[in-house]
Amino acid sequence: MSQVYNFGAGPAMLPVPVMERIRDEFLDFKSMGISIIEISHRAKQFEQVLLDAQERFRQLIDLPDNYKILFVHGGARMQFSALPMNLAGRSPSKKCLYVETGNFAKLANKDAKPFGDIRVIANSADTNYSYLPEITAEMIDQDAAYLHMTTNNTIYGSRYNTFPDTGKVPLIADQTSEILSRVIDYSKFGCIYAGLQKNLGPSGTAIVVIREDLLGHASPETPVLLNYEQCAKDNSLTNTANTFAIYVTGLVLDWLQEQGGVAAIEKINEQKAKTLYDVIDAGDYYRGVIQAEFRGTMNVSFNLPSEELEAKFLKEAGALGLYALKGHRSVGGIRASIYNAMPLAGVEALAGFMKEFESKNG
Amino acid sequence: MSQVYNFGAGPAMLPVPVMERIRDEFLDFKSMGISIIEISHRAKQFEQVLLDAQERFRQLIDLPDNYKILFVHGGARMQFSALPMNLAGRSPSKKCLYVETGNFAKLANKDAKPFGDIRVIANSADTNYSYLPEITAEMIDQDAAYLHMTTNNTIYGSRYNTFPDTGKVPLIADQTSEILSRVIDYSKFGCIYAGLQKNLGPSGTAIVVIREDLLGHASPETPVLLNYEQCAKDNSLTNTANTFAIYVTGLVLDWLQEQGGVAAIEKINEQKAKTLYDVIDAGDYYRGVIQAEFRGTMNVSFNLPSEELEAKFLKEAGALGLYALKGHRSVGGIRASIYNAMPLAGVEALAGFMKEFESKNG
Repeated sequence: MSQVYNFGAGPAMLPVPVMERIRDEFLDFKSMGISIIEISHRAKQFEQVLLDAQERFRQLIDLPDNYKILFVHGGARMQFSALPMNLAGRSPSKKCLYVETGNFAKLANKDAKPFGDIRVIANSADTNYSYLPEITAEMIDQDAAYLHMTTNNTIYGSRYNTFPDTGKVPLIADQTSEILSRVIDYSKFGCIYAGLQKNLGPSGTAIVVIREDLLGHASPETPVLLNYEQCAKDNSLTNTANTFAIYVTGLVLDWLQEQGGVAAIEKINEQKAKTLYDVIDAGDYYRGVIQAEFRGTMNVSFNLPSEELEAKFLKEAGALGLYALKGHRSVGGIRASIYNAMPLAGVEALAGFMKEFESKNG
Repeated sequence: MSQVYNFGAGPAMLPVPVMERIRDEFLDFKSMGISIIEISHRAKQFEQVLLDAQERFRQLIDLPDNYKILFVHGGARMQFSALPMNLAGRSPSKKCLYVETGNFAKLANKDAKPFGDIRVIANSADTNYSYLPEITAEMIDQDAAYLHMTTNNTIYGSRYNTFPDTGKVPLIADQTSEILSRVIDYSKFGCIYAGLQKNLGPSGTAIVVIREDLLGHASPETPVLLNYEQCAKDNSLTNTANTFAIYVTGLVLDWLQEQGGVAAIEKINEQKAKTLYDVIDAGDYYRGVIQAEFRGTMNVSFNLPSEELEAKFLKEAGALGLYALKGHRSVGGIRASIYNAMPLAGVEALAGFMKEFESKNG
């Protein structure tokens, strides 16, 4: 096998130069004679890694000063529990509004149930999440602690291109599968979060961006490491952080700045998604999982005419080094996750294979 | 600087052959053409890594079949909150007994407070934890949900060499700084846990060993990723695990088996600790932080005649490649953490330096 292109949904591929650098300095970080994974989270060298990563992230998304950037344990899913504890813990109504647009959006409201009065105000489960319901002002109860949405749905590839005006209700977004993939005005959000393992780094940890006025409202029954106020106070070092994940994330952020930042990568991401959707839209052979108007750029999910053909497609693609294209079990078919680190060449290789496969098996 | 010996308390040094192997296969795991950190936690290759690590761990500590081995997010400290939620969540009395023998033992009972009726039954805070209080049968309320102790106290270097008979109250132990360092009969314990970052692997995750009958008692308000029963049911893959940490831990466990297992490393650990304590005990220049009968083998904490000499000691040691010897801020002085991965040669280099420093500055 020659070049492998990894279309896995996460843990996902990281930029090649970042991976090479990690390998090259793995035994000797900053001429210390030891590895980044062998130094204390309180060593000045690690503290610098953390501060640099936060600063780079702030620059890349043009984040206002009144937001904190936290690294928290457990990935995005841990936040499904932490969010109601932190944001609705002292709210009189404990009302938390959710928009359910996919499997993870569903888990987000399910995991939140023990900690708030959870209300799903919009839901596209009836069509297996093939579209994104509109969220209108009338749907948003103004005494709710927050409104939660998943802006990009990994399994289906759907993406909200506009965000609702939520009034005084803070808008919270799970952006795990699209963080840093497009320019977004973050001043519209109260809190956004993302597991690192798609567009940022290795797995096990999440980045949480939260407006300062939303800190300090946690329930007294919030575990200390799930308490965002505590995490902000300790700058993500209440206990031993996942130092490797933060280090790798810092390198990925450096790499993204070298690519020209989010606006520059957004253009490439659009080109990459278009390359695949053009093949899908050229005929009836491939069918996109989501309705065209809701397509994002990070995950392209589609079906072939039969499950047998899908199995054949996956087998032949794998043999060519087009790896991890199997769709999530809930929708089947094929999914190409094409995060920031996936080069256009990888997407072109897949598009070429798709055309060839169709012509041979159409 | 030539050879660096890393005496850091954690994240700590890992075995050199393990570190070299991680580097060598970092870009190409199992000839997949991609990295271990770029494959799905549900890929069969990662699943094998996880199963192998669990099996190796079970063999190394000779763990009975009725215990589960879990990898959980957040390190040992997350378990400080998770333990009362899981073990006292449905207990009528919610009584949780704690032995406070150090800074982390104190945090363990502090973090637990929102989730149970926390009672500290023995405490050596009066002497800044310079000894380990005896735990007798009369101290153990038999309707308690559990008794928690820290078997090795990282900051001071104290270690319980015998464990109390707790009757029908499950004995729970934080073993973060001594896991796999000595042979222990784990059938006496209901649950033990350890952050990975000292004797096992990189930071951010803990290993939890729990007797099966203790699962299923969690409070309904337990966050899903802190619920041990859920974690056992999903074999630590309820969500995306810290795949890198589990992979490295597996390699460390392989290495330990190659060294002859826990009994073999225990002998070396005793020799290493004796090498340092012999220098300390040879005169009055160095003073051990803990009383001699409570000494363990993993952390050797001591003071010099003055803070000025301690600063000079640290500076000169650092220049010789004896890294991270500064004691924890709560006790000051010097601490040499000499976990399994520290070779005898490193300890001998430190002992030699200590003698020389004393003769020049005595």
